[in-house]
Amino acid sequence: MKFNELEVGQFAEHTKTVTETDVVMYAGITGDFNPMHVNQAYAEKTRFGGRLAHGMLTAGLISAVLGTRLPGEGSIYMSQSLRFMRPVRIGDTITARIEVIELLPDKQRVRLATSCRNQNQEKVLDGEALVMMQE
Amino acid sequence: MKFNELEVGQFAEHTKTVTETDVVMYAGITGDFNPMHVNQAYAEKTRFGGRLAHGMLTAGLISAVLGTRLPGEGSIYMSQSLRFMRPVRIGDTITARIEVIELLPDKQRVRLATSCRNQNQEKVLDGEALVMMQE
Amino acid sequence: MKFNELEVGQFAEHTKTVTETDVVMYAGITGDFNPMHVNQAYAEKTRFGGRLAHGMLTAGLISAVLGTRLPGEGSIYMSQSLRFMRPVRIGDTITARIEVIELLPDKQRVRLATSCRNQNQEKVLDGEALVMMQE
Amino acid sequence: MKFNELEVGQFAEHTKTVTETDVVMYAGITGDFNPMHVNQAYAEKTRFGGRLAHGMLTAGLISAVLGTRLPGEGSIYMSQSLRFMRPVRIGDTITARIEVIELLPDKQRVRLATSCRNQNQEKVLDGEALVMMQE
Repeated sequence: MKFNELEVGQFAEHTKTVTETDVVMYAGITGDFNPMHVNQAYAEKTRFGGRLAHGMLTAGLISAVLGTRLPGEGSIYMSQSLRFMRPVRIGDTITARIEVIELLPDKQRVRLATSCRNQNQEKVLDGEALVMMQE
Repeated sequence: MKFNELEVGQFAEHTKTVTETDVVMYAGITGDFNPMHVNQAYAEKTRFGGRLAHGMLTAGLISAVLGTRLPGEGSIYMSQSLRFMRPVRIGDTITARIEVIELLPDKQRVRLATSCRNQNQEKVLDGEALVMMQE
Repeated sequence: MKFNELEVGQFAEHTKTVTETDVVMYAGITGDFNPMHVNQAYAEKTRFGGRLAHGMLTAGLISAVLGTRLPGEGSIYMSQSLRFMRPVRIGDTITARIEVIELLPDKQRVRLATSCRNQNQEKVLDGEALVMMQE
Repeated sequence: MKFNELEVGQFAEHTKTVTETDVVMYAGITGDFNPMHVNQAYAEKTRFGGRLAHGMLTAGLISAVLGTRLPGEGSIYMSQSLRFMRPVRIGDTITARIEVIELLPDKQRVRLATSCRNQNQEKVLDGEALVMMQE
């Protein structure tokens, strides 16, 4: 998208079931082998009752909407804030949602509300992103 | 780690070369097929001269230090801010660094400075994290 | 195999359980994130009752027989027709079967019947392939 | 998309660099370990001079356009013909293109021209697809 095609209130979503495969491969890419993510015997004994997805993996779904839908091609990621609100379990279906909340024409920047919800419509992640559009 | 083992100034690092495999698999996990990450012919024509790693993949290296070294096991990720400062190219070697900057004993929380540098010591990512320690 | 070792009626098979991992990685390789394949909450509400494997992933099992067993090494894939007859669910065990149906000695080509069945012997995929043998 | 939103001449594309990682993972999913795909020492001695991507992997990019863009959600893949015209090397950037060529309103079916080209605009794969739209 180009800067002048963007409007406050525009939004886009991306939904995906977070599978064991995703968690295993994400651990391998990043090196985050925290037992909550890769040790089922350990995780079963915690109050979560099983392995959780990495919070930052969930955040990657926000990044996917930014990079492919809104604003998509030509956008440069400047900053992101993330509040992790609820655990994401293996098998949860997560919808990442992005909405344009402010346009900053001087510098071709866009401020976006970013959040993720699970299949029960519970918010699991919240935050804001700032993106610059290439001219 | 336990909360009372933590001190302001403690730090930990995690270093990894970001490979094409990491970028391909990260695109596959998240669905972020932005051409800057998966289309070499396109990326070569941009000012970056080739494919870049997803910014949020680099952020995953911070999460790996948090989850495995400092504070590691027993920590719960509450929030993270991220400023993407420079592109990360396929083949760059990234060091994620975390440092304790504040202890909040009332709620067993820890504030941490989080950053990533490339092999030339250039900062590519900066931010702060807030973590809660399970009792 | 060499062309003169082939006979009409020869056949070969390859059987594999199509796992969630296969589907997740196939989506990642191709970029096919259709919700029928990656969104369990969505897929459960359709008449299929859950996620399906990509049809073209099943077709890949035919290609595996061609590339490794019959005719195997030295064969060049020229064309393939595919009819998708039944859905393949995650967990289904698929047998791809190839049978030589015609030899074309002038151009060292082989025509093959290609099909896939599930664990209940139901045909899920049908078609024909044309392969050229390198001299 | 819904059937009545489709028109003859509509098209959509999906571009991706086919990496070594893709080929390795595709071999693992399907079991197609033909030496042209997984044995570099062997492939270097052939007239191709190196490993090639599986033809059916390239075909998966067509399936990705069908499943996510045109017609996307709600479409059911009925059949596909494939002619493999040129080898795809590791590192080639492939654009899959789909174009609506006929609408069959009686049965809510769509006939599509499907092809893949490399970064030099050479056609590597050609064929046709038939898709049914769910009402």
